[in-house]
Amino acid sequence: MLSFESDYIQGAHGKILERLVETNLEPESGYGNDRFCAQAKEKIREACGCPEADVFFLVGGTQTNLVMVDAFLRQHEGVAAAKTGHVSIHEAGAIERTGHKVLELPEQRGKLDPRELTEYLEKFWQDENYEHMVFPGMVYLTHPTEYGTLYTKKELEEISGICHKYKIPLYLDGARLGYGLASRETDVTLSLIARCCDAFYIGGTKVGALCGEAVVFPQGNMPPHFLTLVKQRGALLAKGRLLGIQFDTLFTDELYLTISRHAIEMAELLKEVLREKGIAFFLESPTNQQFVILENGRMEELKKQAAFSFWEKLDETHTIVRFVTSWATRREDIEKLREIL
Amino acid sequence: MLSFESDYIQGAHGKILERLVETNLEPESGYGNDRFCAQAKEKIREACGCPEADVFFLVGGTQTNLVMVDAFLRQHEGVAAAKTGHVSIHEAGAIERTGHKVLELPEQRGKLDPRELTEYLEKFWQDENYEHMVFPGMVYLTHPTEYGTLYTKKELEEISGICHKYKIPLYLDGARLGYGLASRETDVTLSLIARCCDAFYIGGTKVGALCGEAVVFPQGNMPPHFLTLVKQRGALLAKGRLLGIQFDTLFTDELYLTISRHAIEMAELLKEVLREKGIAFFLESPTNQQFVILENGRMEELKKQAAFSFWEKLDETHTIVRFVTSWATRREDIEKLREIL
Amino acid sequence: MLSFESDYIQGAHGKILERLVETNLEPESGYGNDRFCAQAKEKIREACGCPEADVFFLVGGTQTNLVMVDAFLRQHEGVAAAKTGHVSIHEAGAIERTGHKVLELPEQRGKLDPRELTEYLEKFWQDENYEHMVFPGMVYLTHPTEYGTLYTKKELEEISGICHKYKIPLYLDGARLGYGLASRETDVTLSLIARCCDAFYIGGTKVGALCGEAVVFPQGNMPPHFLTLVKQRGALLAKGRLLGIQFDTLFTDELYLTISRHAIEMAELLKEVLREKGIAFFLESPTNQQFVILENGRMEELKKQAAFSFWEKLDETHTIVRFVTSWATRREDIEKLREIL
Amino acid sequence: MLSFESDYIQGAHGKILERLVETNLEPESGYGNDRFCAQAKEKIREACGCPEADVFFLVGGTQTNLVMVDAFLRQHEGVAAAKTGHVSIHEAGAIERTGHKVLELPEQRGKLDPRELTEYLEKFWQDENYEHMVFPGMVYLTHPTEYGTLYTKKELEEISGICHKYKIPLYLDGARLGYGLASRETDVTLSLIARCCDAFYIGGTKVGALCGEAVVFPQGNMPPHFLTLVKQRGALLAKGRLLGIQFDTLFTDELYLTISRHAIEMAELLKEVLREKGIAFFLESPTNQQFVILENGRMEELKKQAAFSFWEKLDETHTIVRFVTSWATRREDIEKLREIL
Repeated sequence: MLSFESDYIQGAHGKILERLVETNLEPESGYGNDRFCAQAKEKIREACGCPEADVFFLVGGTQTNLVMVDAFLRQHEGVAAAKTGHVSIHEAGAIERTGHKVLELPEQRGKLDPRELTEYLEKFWQDENYEHMVFPGMVYLTHPTEYGTLYTKKELEEISGICHKYKIPLYLDGARLGYGLASRETDVTLSLIARCCDAFYIGGTKVGALCGEAVVFPQGNMPPHFLTLVKQRGALLAKGRLLGIQFDTLFTDELYLTISRHAIEMAELLKEVLREKGIAFFLESPTNQQFVILENGRMEELKKQAAFSFWEKLDETHTIVRFVTSWATRREDIEKLREIL
Repeated sequence: MLSFESDYIQGAHGKILERLVETNLEPESGYGNDRFCAQAKEKIREACGCPEADVFFLVGGTQTNLVMVDAFLRQHEGVAAAKTGHVSIHEAGAIERTGHKVLELPEQRGKLDPRELTEYLEKFWQDENYEHMVFPGMVYLTHPTEYGTLYTKKELEEISGICHKYKIPLYLDGARLGYGLASRETDVTLSLIARCCDAFYIGGTKVGALCGEAVVFPQGNMPPHFLTLVKQRGALLAKGRLLGIQFDTLFTDELYLTISRHAIEMAELLKEVLREKGIAFFLESPTNQQFVILENGRMEELKKQAAFSFWEKLDETHTIVRFVTSWATRREDIEKLREIL
Repeated sequence: MLSFESDYIQGAHGKILERLVETNLEPESGYGNDRFCAQAKEKIREACGCPEADVFFLVGGTQTNLVMVDAFLRQHEGVAAAKTGHVSIHEAGAIERTGHKVLELPEQRGKLDPRELTEYLEKFWQDENYEHMVFPGMVYLTHPTEYGTLYTKKELEEISGICHKYKIPLYLDGARLGYGLASRETDVTLSLIARCCDAFYIGGTKVGALCGEAVVFPQGNMPPHFLTLVKQRGALLAKGRLLGIQFDTLFTDELYLTISRHAIEMAELLKEVLREKGIAFFLESPTNQQFVILENGRMEELKKQAAFSFWEKLDETHTIVRFVTSWATRREDIEKLREIL
Repeated sequence: MLSFESDYIQGAHGKILERLVETNLEPESGYGNDRFCAQAKEKIREACGCPEADVFFLVGGTQTNLVMVDAFLRQHEGVAAAKTGHVSIHEAGAIERTGHKVLELPEQRGKLDPRELTEYLEKFWQDENYEHMVFPGMVYLTHPTEYGTLYTKKELEEISGICHKYKIPLYLDGARLGYGLASRETDVTLSLIARCCDAFYIGGTKVGALCGEAVVFPQGNMPPHFLTLVKQRGALLAKGRLLGIQFDTLFTDELYLTISRHAIEMAELLKEVLREKGIAFFLESPTNQQFVILENGRMEELKKQAAFSFWEKLDETHTIVRFVTSWATRREDIEKLREIL
């Protein structure tokens, strides 16, 4: 069936599978000590413009977030995030399970607002009872956000400045980073992110890999004994080569960007179709996720022919749903949707 | 110096010290297996009208809250609380440190609203992604709340009904319970609380004891191996007699209520004085905590002669501060404040 | 270079890669709700002779162990394991990080002894202070063990009986289960394991998969909300299909057993070569891991031409090292080792 | 009934109760910010010969141990302790609940042996797989040990040297420290302990206080934000004065040592009586705990007239039991025991 359910409904980009097949029987050591990981790390450092960066490969997004919070924070600290952030609501309490609070801040279309962040930090340090409260120990952003929106260069620089001033690490969750970088409406580059953040991850799972996320510590600031911390969370892959080969492929000849651009092109087509069919947008997204409002009857009808995701009830008769394109979306899929609608 | 800083600035009610002295050399087993604990439990059962209740003594409030959340919740569950609840902001992340999220709900003058609670629960179960979210596993109330306000009988019964419907335990933090029960504006009794809640604690620390909180499980529903869970959190007092003697004394001849009523009487006098001196109230509280707005200059002046607590900045020139009475406040203290003001 | 370093130095069995390529573009829902997972579960149920079994796919071994301990144990409980068990020493404290103690018991060639287990349990319940101790809440076995040894049918049944008597779940870590089942010296079958255990996992990573372990709950006794518990540990794979396809392939036409038998055949050849070259065995192993004693000079020499694993220093001049065969070991690899030696 | 059950069967030393009564109504701030805590800290610094020391008061022993492990260790580290250490077996898994492993080492009459400690540390760092293991992050001693035995000056200095060499903090649990310092067979002083350890606590609960333990950081090396870490564990007492007054009293005019010496004198008398009555000692203890072997019939008979503690079954017909003296034991209690025996 036609599906716009998510950007992880297919396997991997063809080139990744080819490389897996080619290299399959070469013996390599485990736990990331293989030549593919080494190559992939080198290419990522180059793409980020950070020759000093540490890079570490993990399997999934929630896993990466919990490992990072655990590794960066001291016990009395929490992570400040938009209240719609992935760590705030859609990770089943994985962050709290590491013992840390998610300090939920207001959001503007999925984004943290630099002024609201400043206000929160000022208020915290002015509070005479702050020793009885959770200290802000990390700022967490998603880019693109859960609503497909993007920070601007100016916003990222401002937030980075605030974090720097308050000596709080800035961490960016890039589960869909490719689709953000490939957007037609962005001035944010990988090297900007590397300059602004203390750590971030480049999402593979949703951008063409079978699985895998590449954590980057731009200043070579990977916490000591990180491998052991990862192991302790059950997040150390025995056959690290599986991650190395995939990221090596994605960062060869700009494949990561190329396939992300394709998804954006498909998203633009999708938006045209949705507009053409008079479907209201819940908000404007410049990336591969589109949130629209469907009357419940129409939604039920549509479900029979195409898959998409439930997002939120809007009111008694309308629902917000999400359509997603990806590296694997074909022009003909969009055409078919047009016909159905 | 004159102090209205909190309700824990003095030692213990005189009768408690007398009993400690009298019983001091009688040998008794440790960990709560002493005759004083046994007597105190029996008197508390009677005061609650719950002959079947389990009672357990702990040392402090944050400790009690974290032990209870830990004992009642399964791993995938969090505790729903008003966003101004003690567990939400003033326990330094003690709840999250046990691995559980505080699900922060809107508050009305420090209280959870039954309708907003229902709305949250309905929305949770309607969300198709709820398996990726933190499940509501307990509802947490404070009575009196952090703002000194009180739930009505009707509100408690409604919230209890909602919890019952959704099969979620209702837990009430009674750090200042005495002052709530003794208020002139309440229809809530100890036996009502026992009927409505799955567990609650009767605060000793702030109501005349040196330390100590009595957790009550009205239906004899103390979780299995509770003593071990308490021990594991470092919360099992070796000389349990210290807690037993105190609660035995507080629940003999209604001492707990009598001294609480005194604090309320003093609070009413205090309110008169504050009103008389033209000081604006931040909100009306029927218990022993009074929140007023002071112009910053006046605040600094007053600080030199009387202690009170910072609560929150209101604006650039005004601050919200808290005055608290207790079992130990004397009529002459209030008179002296009148003179100073 | 020739390598006997571990059983995870290559990619995956060729048939698995073929299936990944074939199915790559079929859209499927995430998180294990795909048709490949459904098929694989059905085949595993059949192989275990447990039509009622629940099956869940996870990514790696340490991850599986920590999720299982977390899901099965109450807070006051620990997991009893041989002191050489994987959870005891080689998981970087992953179990303790979930809050549970590993109760280390004596071992006999890597195995728990039924009598020693009984003795421990009897002593625990006879101890008058047991409420101040960690309760045994799970028994953990590895089969094959860290030393490649195997439990007999009789031993498994005895241990299962003890666990049943004391109402403690029995959990078996089958990271290398295939190599145990395929051994020439075993009377243990998959269905025996399913009858004896409350849960166990069938290892994929070390037996031909890129990654993946299949947890089996033979009596349909998967803990409630297991998916959420898995998510919370960062262990829920978005593209669950990756695991489904692999296990579906491994359990089609007995591929899992067939490739395991090959590894055992290679191990037998390896043993012959080692014996022939006068190398002393540290212990006799009937599976794919062989532990031998090398004089340090010879070890350093050998290292230049073949990879193997350091295990333990024996004394100042000798080291225990490990040689491992796998589904991917070729007859010519063994021949080459013979020449080198 | 006559009781030698433990050293926490009575209330507090009379002088402590006097001081509590005298100071009862003086208003003081909470959470340790009172003048009694300030005075007590100063006196403890003096007694330890450490003018730079940080001192913090906590309520109980298990609580102190878990807070200290939590505050000192990084996530990948565990605490090395004798396998009979209090943290190893009698704290219900409180340490593991903070996420850290207790690395259990061999013991000699309750004590860690410097050579065995060295051997363990050497082996750890020589193991090529150490990144997959729990790192030693603290060495934990009890003095006196669980068996009443004492480290010598030489042993403490050796262990301290080893910890220094490996850069591992040394922490000493002094739940019964007074009885160790007051022993007739020791060359260990409080200032020696302060020189050898990175942190230790001076036990109050078992040495004359109602409750309370004083943690000392001799080099002013209290971890940053320690108060918040304490709060987070539910271990911050609101009326900190209760602890301050008690330790102020205990460290005035050497009361702590004086009452400890009395307990030792009583223990020496007790040993005479036990020897005189032909009762076999399980081991020789120079402090206030005596472990003897009773034939089960005699034990049951004795139980009717005197309380003591079960320790361990020795064989089918004999049991190891513990008799304890304390600051509160009277000469006549020992005489009465002589008569009964």
